[in-house]
Amino acid sequence: MTTDAFPTSPVREARLKMRQGQWTGPTKHTLPGYVKCNLVVLPRSDAYDFLVYCQRNPKPCPLIEVTDPGDPKPRISAPGADLRTDLPRYAIYRSGVRQEDVTDICHLWRDDSVAFLIGSGMTFDDALERAGVPKTTTWALTTTIPTVSAGRFAGPMVVTMRCMTPAQAVIACQLTGRFPFHHGAPIHMGDPAAIGVDLEHPLFGEPVTEFPQGVVPVFWACGVTPQQAAIHSKVELMIAHAPGHAFVTDLLADRVCLP
Amino acid sequence: MTTDAFPTSPVREARLKMRQGQWTGPTKHTLPGYVKCNLVVLPRSDAYDFLVYCQRNPKPCPLIEVTDPGDPKPRISAPGADLRTDLPRYAIYRSGVRQEDVTDICHLWRDDSVAFLIGSGMTFDDALERAGVPKTTTWALTTTIPTVSAGRFAGPMVVTMRCMTPAQAVIACQLTGRFPFHHGAPIHMGDPAAIGVDLEHPLFGEPVTEFPQGVVPVFWACGVTPQQAAIHSKVELMIAHAPGHAFVTDLLADRVCLP
Repeated sequence: MTTDAFPTSPVREARLKMRQGQWTGPTKHTLPGYVKCNLVVLPRSDAYDFLVYCQRNPKPCPLIEVTDPGDPKPRISAPGADLRTDLPRYAIYRSGVRQEDVTDICHLWRDDSVAFLIGSGMTFDDALERAGVPKTTTWALTTTIPTVSAGRFAGPMVVTMRCMTPAQAVIACQLTGRFPFHHGAPIHMGDPAAIGVDLEHPLFGEPVTEFPQGVVPVFWACGVTPQQAAIHSKVELMIAHAPGHAFVTDLLADRVCLP
Repeated sequence: MTTDAFPTSPVREARLKMRQGQWTGPTKHTLPGYVKCNLVVLPRSDAYDFLVYCQRNPKPCPLIEVTDPGDPKPRISAPGADLRTDLPRYAIYRSGVRQEDVTDICHLWRDDSVAFLIGSGMTFDDALERAGVPKTTTWALTTTIPTVSAGRFAGPMVVTMRCMTPAQAVIACQLTGRFPFHHGAPIHMGDPAAIGVDLEHPLFGEPVTEFPQGVVPVFWACGVTPQQAAIHSKVELMIAHAPGHAFVTDLLADRVCLP
């Protein structure tokens, strides 16, 4: 890992700890400045439709990298890394049902496995904070906004919700619009019911009973959307990152474009 | 075409003329404000690798839409349009060799044909003009910058070159950076030799002998890159738009994001 070919850096050291089982906690709010990614691993037989699904839904499913079948190495976004070991925690789904979490997936990796790295809103959280929009609780919620289907993959868009003042929301719209490969600008602000969000039943996070005075909820397309589509399709085997435990690439978020 | 389901608009009227053979000329510098696309049609058997190739090279190959196999309709970017008839002119390549140009491709369309719409720098030309950077000659040139391969698809990046003053180049960098799905910001400015450009042998345009005083050449990744990769791979059949004769979608360029 830390040979001459891959000089050391905070993110490479962190991935090495994950590989060695010394880091099994979340990556959220860690390693500021590096692009973080949602992971989906599918068999090659499902990969074409999944790739088209991601293309058709660029806001929830921005593709950062797609590996060759059987190759666990993200050669563009994190040279030297291995997606079988270099995430702190993985969630396993069989026929759409979540199984045990694991800390490496070597035993599940196959010759026909294809890994998809999908942009994450975690990437712009640091940039928001630097711009004076403090980090707050983030919820993941299902909407009634349909995604565009491709083959077996379909379903509603999942969003993340952050609460902020209107002035912060204006800053957040401008700033996150600069990150088109990490969900971009919000897809909605204000009334959650307008996009069919049920605040009492978030996918992740505590139920929301009411918003503090003077605060507006702001909604971004979420990288959990394609995982949910794969779950709903009851795909035989899907390996994903465990929520909050995203893959951290070598890419610098502030460069705002892909290599 | 112009039923109630698809209300009329300048771009829909233009596509109808193309369908009826009344518009066979270029779309470059026409229909300002609408997103224009490069077209590539390939058999399904080549589509997966081509899709991964585009994902791995987002600057030259930003994907706007991918149709289902056998479906000639770009249902997201131009509802009601038909990619077999609604471009003014097509270029046909067999085993990497350019054949006759045609004005419709109904006779070549197959049950396994997949159409790829790829973003085009034509989309930001209008925006540049509105920002005080006048339209000028555009050249397409091969570089020595390698793209990232996928399956049989590989080859050098093709770029477009526009000449402008340094002050205009600063504006152009900012402005085109807002169009990540249409090649985004420049990949180079200044010395053409630094990226291996041979000014005497452009792919499209006249040879360049010298630049006027006070002018800097600015280079953008070009949507001809994936066509060139398909040509070099000697794919059995590729249908592309004829140079300058791009597909015009219903999408508004100034929205800067995809639907």
